[in-house]
Amino acid sequence: MTAVATETPAYEASVPAEDSRAFRNALGQYGTGVAVITTLRDGVPVGMTVNSFAAVSLDPPLVLWSIRNDSGRAPAFVEADSFVVNVLAADQMEVARVVATAGSGPEAFEAIAWTPGADGVPLVDGALARLECRLHEVADGGDHRILVGHVERCSVTDGQPLLFVQGGYALPEPLLPGDAGGAAEPQYGAPGEPAPFAQLVTAASHRLSRAFDEHRARFGLGVASSRVLKRLSAGPMTCDQLVATCFLGPRAVEDALSELVDAGLVSRSGASYRQTTDGRLVRRQVAESARRFNESALEGLPEADVAAAHRVLAALVAE
Amino acid sequence: MTAVATETPAYEASVPAEDSRAFRNALGQYGTGVAVITTLRDGVPVGMTVNSFAAVSLDPPLVLWSIRNDSGRAPAFVEADSFVVNVLAADQMEVARVVATAGSGPEAFEAIAWTPGADGVPLVDGALARLECRLHEVADGGDHRILVGHVERCSVTDGQPLLFVQGGYALPEPLLPGDAGGAAEPQYGAPGEPAPFAQLVTAASHRLSRAFDEHRARFGLGVASSRVLKRLSAGPMTCDQLVATCFLGPRAVEDALSELVDAGLVSRSGASYRQTTDGRLVRRQVAESARRFNESALEGLPEADVAAAHRVLAALVAE
Repeated sequence: MTAVATETPAYEASVPAEDSRAFRNALGQYGTGVAVITTLRDGVPVGMTVNSFAAVSLDPPLVLWSIRNDSGRAPAFVEADSFVVNVLAADQMEVARVVATAGSGPEAFEAIAWTPGADGVPLVDGALARLECRLHEVADGGDHRILVGHVERCSVTDGQPLLFVQGGYALPEPLLPGDAGGAAEPQYGAPGEPAPFAQLVTAASHRLSRAFDEHRARFGLGVASSRVLKRLSAGPMTCDQLVATCFLGPRAVEDALSELVDAGLVSRSGASYRQTTDGRLVRRQVAESARRFNESALEGLPEADVAAAHRVLAALVAE
Repeated sequence: MTAVATETPAYEASVPAEDSRAFRNALGQYGTGVAVITTLRDGVPVGMTVNSFAAVSLDPPLVLWSIRNDSGRAPAFVEADSFVVNVLAADQMEVARVVATAGSGPEAFEAIAWTPGADGVPLVDGALARLECRLHEVADGGDHRILVGHVERCSVTDGQPLLFVQGGYALPEPLLPGDAGGAAEPQYGAPGEPAPFAQLVTAASHRLSRAFDEHRARFGLGVASSRVLKRLSAGPMTCDQLVATCFLGPRAVEDALSELVDAGLVSRSGASYRQTTDGRLVRRQVAESARRFNESALEGLPEADVAAAHRVLAALVAE
């Protein structure tokens, strides 16, 4: 990885064939939903958590996703007649995790709620959308196979989708007309009326999270690395334990750990990872700096107002 | 579209081959990033805004996206040696729109900032990631063609990605350990310390937006339809004007307009759409109800605290 000199912003350039960690990082910049793909193998449910789903065609209705050639579950999907794409809702991170970590066994289907579809293939309860597909084609895709499905039936419910962005789970925050203009324009109510409270909260949240991202980047730590480093403050952990508690995908945790080990901030012993002395120091600096960031964002505002705002927001969150 | 009786949540079922609007709606539940794909045709830049991008393989490094067979720009991409996938950043909605509405002409490249890559193909300035691809394969995908690219080089910068979710543009709001638990757990600082202000604002924003979604759904209006109906309060508009001002994709606006026309809330005359009397009435009810929603969320909290919170948030947003 070499730094390329351009005007702002600065880009890190890499050659994917030589540096697959940098390539994964580049791919992770494209946000995706999270889908659990289900099928039956000899009558037994099989599932995969993927973020490689894409819409292809409306007429005929086709969609695709891909699976690693060396996945133990590949034969089940490649040889099946049909599969279901279950698009996960915002509150289904645990479903994603259970299916992702269950291996090829059917145990996951004892832990999650589902209903058999028309072909008997599991429809995940609570998924935002379920697309029941007939396997239409399997295409070669390097170390993956691309499965194209013909969508026979679909069902949709209301709600927000779960997203996977830069290695971690996320929710969508809709961009509304007015966000671009800086000050919040009322989204409802008469023009010229003060912005409603809910909308002010959203606008303030955007503003603070953008400011904090810029701030964090100064430490040279990515989102995943800084989250993993923080988690290790509680004591040594395995990679699996980090995946279960950091709200990050397994790949993102693995990459963050190699990055942190390379930087001398984390050391590995067997399956267990712990902060080094340098790691503890950097972690303390980030925490201290985050505290100062919070203070400086509120600088110049009356203390009593800030305390009142704190009470109001805490009450909303606790509801 | 028929309602299927299940336990909560209720699902709307449809057959994609017979109801492509319902199918598009189902596909839209899967969130995506937004990419501008660029190539050269006889030395002249050509661009497409897509959300059909997907990662395929790490070794060899392959990615894919798809293009409508009948797109005027399809020949340029299908016959090119190479293309670039530019993954758009959160502040590049205007880039997405300009490229999407420019037709096959090169005008878009006069309006956006770009730099030629190694093959001369435009790299969009400010894109979060740029993947320079050699066209590896073109596969049949119903009414689309699937273009598989071999990624030769990539470059990445820091920032948040632009997302496309349920027909509209969005930003990611990372899910943090603690969100699941209800009350906000401090993300930084010592355990047991009160939640920092920035984090409370984010948690409150999640809470209010989820509550408001449930509320809005009671009017039977989707996100896109309610936004389009609101926009038409300002007077008659064309579909293109709505796309430019509603922060929604063209498909979402078209679908919202047909839905609103079918429901008698909007009427069409030539290229122009306007609220009907019923439309004005429903719009007023939604606005009134949104106002009551804001009030009820804050019910029981001291008025002085709410006013102070309002001042603090407005100051943060105005900065």
